[in-house]
Amino acid sequence: MTKMITLGISTDAHSQMKDITAEVKRAVAETGVENGVCILFVPHTTGAVTINENADPDVVRDFLYEIDKVVPWNDGYRHYEGNSAAHLKASMIGFSETILIENGKLVLGTWQGIYFTEFDGPRRRKLHIKVLAG
Amino acid sequence: MTKMITLGISTDAHSQMKDITAEVKRAVAETGVENGVCILFVPHTTGAVTINENADPDVVRDFLYEIDKVVPWNDGYRHYEGNSAAHLKASMIGFSETILIENGKLVLGTWQGIYFTEFDGPRRRKLHIKVLAG
Amino acid sequence: MTKMITLGISTDAHSQMKDITAEVKRAVAETGVENGVCILFVPHTTGAVTINENADPDVVRDFLYEIDKVVPWNDGYRHYEGNSAAHLKASMIGFSETILIENGKLVLGTWQGIYFTEFDGPRRRKLHIKVLAG
Repeated sequence: MTKMITLGISTDAHSQMKDITAEVKRAVAETGVENGVCILFVPHTTGAVTINENADPDVVRDFLYEIDKVVPWNDGYRHYEGNSAAHLKASMIGFSETILIENGKLVLGTWQGIYFTEFDGPRRRKLHIKVLAG
Repeated sequence: MTKMITLGISTDAHSQMKDITAEVKRAVAETGVENGVCILFVPHTTGAVTINENADPDVVRDFLYEIDKVVPWNDGYRHYEGNSAAHLKASMIGFSETILIENGKLVLGTWQGIYFTEFDGPRRRKLHIKVLAG
Repeated sequence: MTKMITLGISTDAHSQMKDITAEVKRAVAETGVENGVCILFVPHTTGAVTINENADPDVVRDFLYEIDKVVPWNDGYRHYEGNSAAHLKASMIGFSETILIENGKLVLGTWQGIYFTEFDGPRRRKLHIKVLAG
């Protein structure tokens, strides 16, 4: 059994994909688990977690640009905080991700990086990590 | 090892986010598991499960309003049942969610509630819950 | 403890939902696990995994048609490979899915099939499967 690990993440912009691959890998390595799964969970409602390309930075730029066209910031919402777009984007991208662990390492594809996706920053955020052996 | 638990959920409208946080918490407590993960799974194709703010009801209103603008109910679909929008919305929001358990409690953020998202109701729905200790 | 299983998947079109339900069921059966969970993980950034109706093929047609309207292939992107739409679609649909196992069988709803969703094919793809007993 491993303990839950919580990462602190500072986002720097209103919309941002922050690469947290190195931090997640380090947390998994510290558990010493050789085989199992790693579960990531975001305890917020306007930020999420996803995986995407970590090579060309324009992928991240295009991702944020396009999701803002799909779910515009101003679009007849009623929520008094004015950030309803962020709530919907976060649910579309998702609050949990499960990644496999083999031989002590996260099984990620060649171009995959793990991103905290901020949709209403900048803010101080958290991401919980739980590793299950098996 | 814990048994799978199945919740019955009655949705009341064509589109709805039904707060099931209390029911999920109760199911997790009944397993007696102190540390591990809780997996939620929706066995349907036009309903899904997500997490979002449980404070201002306008967040839910805006969520349903905006996702209906993103994926309109009528948009040149061919499926004879006429509910293709519901199928796509459900895949966007997702059929499974994994939430951590620490000290016998679900680890949810301050503003997070768990929602069954109905996109073609009203209907009788199910949601499966599995708790893994670890 | 079970070993990770990797499926090879050949997609046949630029956008495609490829039904992999039978392959996933076979892999789960081979582990011999009676109760637990099955985690699916896609190690790519322009393909994803979801669940949807496996009865009327028009559901799949409408899904691909509509998600292409929501996130158009050409829309002012900068990424030099020209496939930014595929990256965003993949994050919207998601890279991991968790399905329950009871009595040696995947717990899927009556109309649910498991799909590899290709958004920039045709390509040779992989999907990892991990079964956890519990």
